[in-house]
Formats: sequence, C-alpha cells, structure tokens
Amino acid sequence: MSGFVSLVGAGPGDPALLTRAAVQRLRRADLVLYDALVSPESVAIARRARRFSVGKRAGRPSMPQDTIHKLMIRAARRGLRVVRLKGGDPFVFGRGGEEALALRAAGVPFEVIPGVSSAVAAPALSGIPVTHRGLTSAFTVVSGHARSSYEPVFDAVRPGTMTLVVMMGTGAQAEIASALTARGWAASTPAAIIYAASREDAETWTGSLASLERGDGPVDPARPGTLIIGEVVKLRDVLAEDLADGEEAAGAR
Amino acid sequence: MSGFVSLVGAGPGDPALLTRAAVQRLRRADLVLYDALVSPESVAIARRARRFSVGKRAGRPSMPQDTIHKLMIRAARRGLRVVRLKGGDPFVFGRGGEEALALRAAGVPFEVIPGVSSAVAAPALSGIPVTHRGLTSAFTVVSGHARSSYEPVFDAVRPGTMTLVVMMGTGAQAEIASALTARGWAASTPAAIIYAASREDAETWTGSLASLERGDGPVDPARPGTLIIGEVVKLRDVLAEDLADGEEAAGAR
Repeated sequence: MSGFVSLVGAGPGDPALLTRAAVQRLRRADLVLYDALVSPESVAIARRARRFSVGKRAGRPSMPQDTIHKLMIRAARRGLRVVRLKGGDPFVFGRGGEEALALRAAGVPFEVIPGVSSAVAAPALSGIPVTHRGLTSAFTVVSGHARSSYEPVFDAVRPGTMTLVVMMGTGAQAEIASALTARGWAASTPAAIIYAASREDAETWTGSLASLERGDGPVDPARPGTLIIGEVVKLRDVLAEDLADGEEAAGAR
Repeated sequence: MSGFVSLVGAGPGDPALLTRAAVQRLRRADLVLYDALVSPESVAIARRARRFSVGKRAGRPSMPQDTIHKLMIRAARRGLRVVRLKGGDPFVFGRGGEEALALRAAGVPFEVIPGVSSAVAAPALSGIPVTHRGLTSAFTVVSGHARSSYEPVFDAVRPGTMTLVVMMGTGAQAEIASALTARGWAASTPAAIIYAASREDAETWTGSLASLERGDGPVDPARPGTLIIGEVVKLRDVLAEDLADGEEAAGAR
C-alpha cells in the first residue's frame, strides 16, 4: 500500500475551529508532524498516530525544513498515512507550498486541507471585521517575521487605504509601526494586537500606530500574535461586548 | 429564555470544510438564514431548524440587508437559536460586520464563528499558495463586485509586488485585467480563475492578465468564482497533478 500525506490547516487554536476534514484525517493518521503553535487538544485527536512536534515556535529551535520534508517522504514511502498539521492555513506563511513541492518532486501523493486562517479569524473573534462597507474594501496580509519581509510590502501599499494584517509581528510592533508612519500612515491610525486568538488565554489590546510605536502594546513571545492596522479596529469598541460571549461559546466544547 | 444568533462561516462549499463549531451550531439551531452560495448539504445539517435562503447569489434578487437584520432580531427575541450561515468567512466581504452591528444595536446576544475563507482555500485547492517564499511575501484580498470597490485598491498597490485575490470578480474579468495593466501590471502576469472551489463542479483555468483581458477565461455567473493574479499561479503547473487527488479526497465524505 502506498502512503499519503495530508497538509492540514489546524486553524487558530481552538479545536472547535478544526474542519471536519481535518478531524477525519487526524483520526486515521499513522503519523502526525505538528507545529509547536498547534494546540495539544487538536494533536490529541490523532489517537492512533505517532505524534512529533517539528517546532516553529518563535525563539525556539525548530527542525530544519529539509528534515521535515525527509520525514514526510520517508513515512509515506513506508505506506503510512501522514498528517502535516500546521497552525492556521497551510498556505498562509506556513511554507506549505515548499512542502507540497518537495512531496511532488519525490512522487509522494498528497492533498491540501485548507484551514481557518488566523489572518481573518483572530480579528473576527476580537470584534474586528477585516472588511467593512464604508471603511475598507480590501485587506493585505503580510508577515512581520523580518524587516525584509514587511518593508517591501509597506513600500508597495499606499498609506491608509486598506486594512493591514501583520502575522508573526508582535515582537517587532514598534519597528513595524515606525516603518508605517515613516511611509505616511497617520500616527492616529487604529491598531490592535491579538494574542492566542480562540484560546483560553486570548488577549486583545487596542491603541494606535503612535502607541504601538511607543511600545505601549503587550509583548509576549510565548503566544502567537497578530497585528491589525486600520479603521476597522474601531468597530471592536461597539462589537466586543457581545463577542466576549461568543469567544466563550466557541471555546466551550 | 433569551435567543441567540451565531454568525457562522460555511467555508467554500464542501461540507467537509465546515468547522466543528459550525456543525454544532447548525445541529442545535431553530432557524437558519443562509446565503444562496452555501451548499445544500451544509444547510441540511440543521435538521431540526426552519431554513430560509436569503439570496445573495450574483444576478438574482436577494433579500434586503435590513430585512435579514429584522428577521434575525425578531427570531432571537422570540427565544430562538438562530444561525446566520454565510459562504466562506462572515467578515470577508460577507457584510457580517453590518449584521453584527445591527444585532448589537438591538441588544441581541451573538457570536461569530470564523470559517475557511475562499480567498485562501480556493487557490489552495487549485495548487496555488497565496504566499510562497521567494515569490511573494504578501497578498491583498479585494472585492471585484464593482469598479468602485476594486479601482481604488488597484490604485493603492504597486504593480507586481504581491498576490492579488479578487473575490466575486469573475463576471468582470476583462475589465479587472484592463484596470491592472492600465496601472502598470505586466500583461504576462500569471492569472487564474477558480469556480466552485471544493465542490464537485470545481474548475480552474490559468492564463495571464493578457488572456483575461481578451476574455479567454470561462465566464459562469452560476458558480462562485475567484480570480488570482501573481507569480504564485505558476506553482499550479507543478502542484496540480497530485492535488487533483486531494480535491477528490476532500470531496469524499
């Protein structure tokens, strides 16, 4: 029997936000290779599988990408059903494309199971729609991992014209805010920091590019974080009270 | 007993891409108000609920937004558990923000259950990652519904710098391609049209801005469609063969 690899998005963290397809793949998996940001409850669904963390948490050593590829390919060639479980969606800054190319090159059959991306879900669960009639008709999603990833994007977007979602950028929030105001974004532009969206330790802070630049926002390298910049952040003031119930409800499983 | 409204994302269409939270809300719902683009199999999960289509399919009359608000509010005040089921994610061009504001203003408790957005899932299932190391470090999602929604966004993004995802734009593909080349996007920029992602009648076409502008792409107002523009579209040539299996696998329930 030939093995098979499923590149699966685990969503923002709450196992209730896994797709049914993800749950099905986990239940029948022989081997699960998961990122450190995936919640333990989601990994535990793969009862009969051997399960290995392959890292990818900010500030901790993670397995080299090549090694992940080799592990997947070797296991599939041995006939195993492999789930590569990634936070959010596999193709939103998840290096899922690289993993798919490696599997393709090795002749290993695979599939992609999209997941709920934190780019949209983190603000949604905090009462912030990424699009809203009259406020913005577009949003740009960018990685805040390195200056070399976000600066060219900030150069390419006219200030104040749309919502920005900066993933993995909470550690560099002051630099990111400075990079935006230096390019003409108003210091008063509303901004939010969201940690651990959909999880029990979720936290949302709101301010402005000016307060981000001063370093007023909370910094926590232990939790996955997302920055939201744009007028839509103001909607949280109106929407958040009831959404608090929603967060609890989504968390109750 | 007080009623409650869940604004729920149904994902791109395949019921296997519903989240577990969405399935749970549907199973216990008393009333489901669903968009026309949500698949019948997903709506049918709400076995004990009264179910009403509120429209929102291109080219067909749909219920006025105000009427949807009134229906939700009235039902919740009568103590019902209401699910407002929306294609993709409620806050990505879904007018979910407006519905949340209306519920808030009426004092009706509600929650938001994020869904798998077609903005990311449609290209993923066609073998196109929206981000890919070395090709793009950002993507912009914009509505192609009206010239007035996409032209200001095209004005605001420097040509060729990132992936563009144009939702609800397949009917205006030639105008959209012209609007981009007129702003300096290379006519050779790879482009894809994806219809009915994750469904049995899914179809992907690839070409360039030049061929889109000539009207070479398929036009089908009956199926939801997404345009993808950028270098990442080229990855489909390598990734699609194996992904065809994946599409079938995701479709098998």
